[in-house]
Amino acid sequence: MPIKREQAVISVDLGGSKILSAVIGAQGTIIARDLRPTEARRGVEVVFRNVLDSVSAAVIKAELSLKPAALGICVPSIANSNAGIVYHPSNLPGWENVPLGNMLQKATGLKTFVMNDANAAALGELYFGAAIGIRNCVYVTISTGIGGGIIIDGKLYEGHTGLAGEVGHMVVEPHGIPCGCGSSGCWERYASGSAIALKAKTAVNAGKKTNLLKLAGGNVEKIDANLIHAAALQGDKLAKELIAESARYLAIGFGNLINIFNPQMIIVGGGYARMGKVLLQPAFKLAARYSFPEAFAANRFRLAKLGGNSGIRGTAAYVFNELADTRN
Amino acid sequence: MPIKREQAVISVDLGGSKILSAVIGAQGTIIARDLRPTEARRGVEVVFRNVLDSVSAAVIKAELSLKPAALGICVPSIANSNAGIVYHPSNLPGWENVPLGNMLQKATGLKTFVMNDANAAALGELYFGAAIGIRNCVYVTISTGIGGGIIIDGKLYEGHTGLAGEVGHMVVEPHGIPCGCGSSGCWERYASGSAIALKAKTAVNAGKKTNLLKLAGGNVEKIDANLIHAAALQGDKLAKELIAESARYLAIGFGNLINIFNPQMIIVGGGYARMGKVLLQPAFKLAARYSFPEAFAANRFRLAKLGGNSGIRGTAAYVFNELADTRN
Repeated sequence: MPIKREQAVISVDLGGSKILSAVIGAQGTIIARDLRPTEARRGVEVVFRNVLDSVSAAVIKAELSLKPAALGICVPSIANSNAGIVYHPSNLPGWENVPLGNMLQKATGLKTFVMNDANAAALGELYFGAAIGIRNCVYVTISTGIGGGIIIDGKLYEGHTGLAGEVGHMVVEPHGIPCGCGSSGCWERYASGSAIALKAKTAVNAGKKTNLLKLAGGNVEKIDANLIHAAALQGDKLAKELIAESARYLAIGFGNLINIFNPQMIIVGGGYARMGKVLLQPAFKLAARYSFPEAFAANRFRLAKLGGNSGIRGTAAYVFNELADTRN
Repeated sequence: MPIKREQAVISVDLGGSKILSAVIGAQGTIIARDLRPTEARRGVEVVFRNVLDSVSAAVIKAELSLKPAALGICVPSIANSNAGIVYHPSNLPGWENVPLGNMLQKATGLKTFVMNDANAAALGELYFGAAIGIRNCVYVTISTGIGGGIIIDGKLYEGHTGLAGEVGHMVVEPHGIPCGCGSSGCWERYASGSAIALKAKTAVNAGKKTNLLKLAGGNVEKIDANLIHAAALQGDKLAKELIAESARYLAIGFGNLINIFNPQMIIVGGGYARMGKVLLQPAFKLAARYSFPEAFAANRFRLAKLGGNSGIRGTAAYVFNELADTRN
């Protein structure tokens, strides 16, 4: 029996490895979902085709009796939400200034909104997760890179042209290593999962004493943040040192955000949110060293609550807000 | 003949060297002013007495027929605007957690508002200066230290407990020199007037070839940012190098602010605003290296317009806003 939902929207989380599409109701309820591989290496056309297929599959599963009100998509890139342009996602090869909004609008006939995935996740946590009722907070997602979303006065802060919140590209090392963004010394080059993995690989290749290579089955390329985490829990000295260094860089960035925003809450999501005890708790404490005591005391650190659904739920919230604004 | 102004407020800018008080009308007009030395070294009581004397003098000069509606004071310190507490101004010795709001309220019988001086200057520029009509911008004041004020959606962003905007205490050197705030490697330790002066003195003491000592009349302690600026204009190699290094650190901080806020405008005030051609213009250009091109392109750099009156005019605007909010 088809479900009648006047106020359903389609929400898509386009990631470097997976596409997650959903039909979502006005209360944030997920009515139907579709998950499939992005096939990022096959280029823009194939990825776009996969997005459309995923959207269709979710809509069919949802058995809607009415056309969805609009479509929202979040992307792993800075994006101009007004113009619907995706600038340069580092993990979607070939994507440069893609007018994804127009493309999707044309293909689906639906009004389409494009946004950054960390901004979407921040909104998701604000409406449905760790930040319910919070007025001023910063969401930080730490995995391969570091993304951010800023909530001010209970709303997503998008900046002048929709690009705000790129906290992962604060420079924290003035003579630092180059970053994919074109700058160098960026926070995500020193405190992300890929940063710690790169340092571990370099140390292993340099012959440092550690169990990491053994844990990786002898294949240095298999060393990643999770493996380093596991090794540290087993007492591996190198792994523990790398995690301590990572925690210090995390603390510097958190301290900067505390001094700049005096937030009520910093919410941490992404793969690193799983490494709480070993990595994040020390980083949270250490942030006191890099921020005003009064501002540090005003802030609470919290782990994100929504996990893999934060992007689609936040994107849906954004679309519902935009639709409401248009009507007013 | 006494002027009848129903909506006049008293506005005070308490600085490390001077106290500027004014009676200001609802349109931001300065009706009367009083300027006198802070006498900071004589401690809290004398400074407080000087503030009261300055306020009285300004009120007498204004020849008001009605009692002023309220009093606002901006201070060179993080301050809790709700509680009226001044935490720890680095250039007012002896001031630690001073309940200035209550003290002034008791002494004057006027409702009193306390705020950070850079926040006040940001509001001043928003209402009367370089940022009229701008929705999202960051004000940065660069002199002895670096302060900041954040305007979001046409309003001052104060954060959860009124401490937001401390951009001068972003850590930009993870192994950096200690800062008076308790942290280390802060932006203001690398890009402020006192930072460049310290580097110049160290270089002179180390015997580096330069005209700086001669320009300072042989007294190394007289070397300051203005002198370095003058030497650079005369072609002094060391002065030019120091300014280039300072510009690079300024650019890093500006780039961070661009990536975080995607502002429409960054406004630069303070003593450094006078060193535009030699120092700021290169720093503005160089910020492109440390920010996303799209966000960099969306931002305009502007010099502050209000000069020494930005604090009192911004504080007055804040007080009028707060009074209006209370009435609604």
